[in-house]
Amino acid sequence: MNAEAENLKLFEKERFARSLGIRVLEVKDGYARVEAKVRPKLTNLHGFAHGGLLFALADTAFALSVNVNRPAAAVQFSMSICRPTPVGETLTGESTVMHNGRSQVVVALKVTDSRGNLVASGQATALPVNYGKK
Amino acid sequence: MNAEAENLKLFEKERFARSLGIRVLEVKDGYARVEAKVRPKLTNLHGFAHGGLLFALADTAFALSVNVNRPAAAVQFSMSICRPTPVGETLTGESTVMHNGRSQVVVALKVTDSRGNLVASGQATALPVNYGKK
Amino acid sequence: MNAEAENLKLFEKERFARSLGIRVLEVKDGYARVEAKVRPKLTNLHGFAHGGLLFALADTAFALSVNVNRPAAAVQFSMSICRPTPVGETLTGESTVMHNGRSQVVVALKVTDSRGNLVASGQATALPVNYGKK
Amino acid sequence: MNAEAENLKLFEKERFARSLGIRVLEVKDGYARVEAKVRPKLTNLHGFAHGGLLFALADTAFALSVNVNRPAAAVQFSMSICRPTPVGETLTGESTVMHNGRSQVVVALKVTDSRGNLVASGQATALPVNYGKK
Repeated sequence: MNAEAENLKLFEKERFARSLGIRVLEVKDGYARVEAKVRPKLTNLHGFAHGGLLFALADTAFALSVNVNRPAAAVQFSMSICRPTPVGETLTGESTVMHNGRSQVVVALKVTDSRGNLVASGQATALPVNYGKK
Repeated sequence: MNAEAENLKLFEKERFARSLGIRVLEVKDGYARVEAKVRPKLTNLHGFAHGGLLFALADTAFALSVNVNRPAAAVQFSMSICRPTPVGETLTGESTVMHNGRSQVVVALKVTDSRGNLVASGQATALPVNYGKK
Repeated sequence: MNAEAENLKLFEKERFARSLGIRVLEVKDGYARVEAKVRPKLTNLHGFAHGGLLFALADTAFALSVNVNRPAAAVQFSMSICRPTPVGETLTGESTVMHNGRSQVVVALKVTDSRGNLVASGQATALPVNYGKK
Repeated sequence: MNAEAENLKLFEKERFARSLGIRVLEVKDGYARVEAKVRPKLTNLHGFAHGGLLFALADTAFALSVNVNRPAAAVQFSMSICRPTPVGETLTGESTVMHNGRSQVVVALKVTDSRGNLVASGQATALPVNYGKK
């Protein structure tokens, strides 16, 4: 089984992401793209897509992009939210590895709507799991 | 109806938070505390509480702490994740307003487990909604 | 005087950046690039380029990229540091506007060394100055 | 020589911090406090304390608070800036270790003015140096 298939198998274990209706669109080494539809139960008190959904999209793409070749756990997230998203829209989350070092992995995160508008943008840091044990 | 009651009414609209089983423990001006149990469907591919759950706890506390007196929308989140949390634990999310300025609100975010261990810690920035229209 | 020239004039007022030896390489609408040489007095206790220098490079590029058409003040910075930089290297700081909204400006920040290696990467949020007064 | 004295010796190597006029006020295990006067050469183009100065204050306090017992290098900074500071003010930077784990150290950062107003607030993550080599 190749790395991409391995990773899709990992996604099967992502029960949280699946319960939100997140679907995997693309996974390759250092990159992943996922999507979800903004359903009423995923909204915040203003009636727009909940920050938790934006975060889950980014986080799922992140996990898929960094766990291909070695397991890594997120230790830091920073995210800017640029615009509200109404019910019915489909949001895409992308993660691109920018730095894959010995002691840390840094990724760029992006959430866009169906017209390509930037909804959220951020970064995350992951540490290789078992790092320090080798 | 006072501000706290108003805010609990706001929470009724937080469909996403409620679907995750988040409960409100305390709301007062500039502070809120919520909790959720880590159920299997809220886990990541490593089998621990999903980052999306930590974020949703922090975000819900945040929304309750800043929307008491004037509506505000989050534009930035930063969060460090300190330790993994197994299924069965109960996590508490807290938000404390540190700066309530004319043009921005800055809050401190904290997620702890049932023994008081720090699980996640961060900050968020909100802009008053309708700001600039007045 | 056009916007770029205006902005270079603004840089003349950036006494801090100039005292660190920061030079402007390029300024256009929504983008700026600056550089500085890592001199011994700009190092940290490990003998590498100080985080403060990386930040100043990113911050100066940021200020030049967002102040072209309307004044804006930074309210939030997030930055990952990927590798240490020795004395003698020249570092380049870049800022690219990703979202230029009514109520906030979000930029991507990048610091690279002379061989193009990523040294630091981040984001910043700025609020238009005088916003809310109009 | 005890840990505090060791750390003050480390500060002697912080050439950047010293060139900005930063002074150490207090160092103990997991905590450090430093200060600097806002001189004209430390201002931004709006004439207020430069973001680079706020960052350097936070970063210096950070380095002093985490390097007492084992060397660590910063990999991530997040900081909110709450208010502008005029020339003549004295700014204090504080760093408090919140989480001191095997694989990462997380600190809270705070910059205040002489009246105790919050000027900047943030967090940083450091990785133990040589971590993984042991």
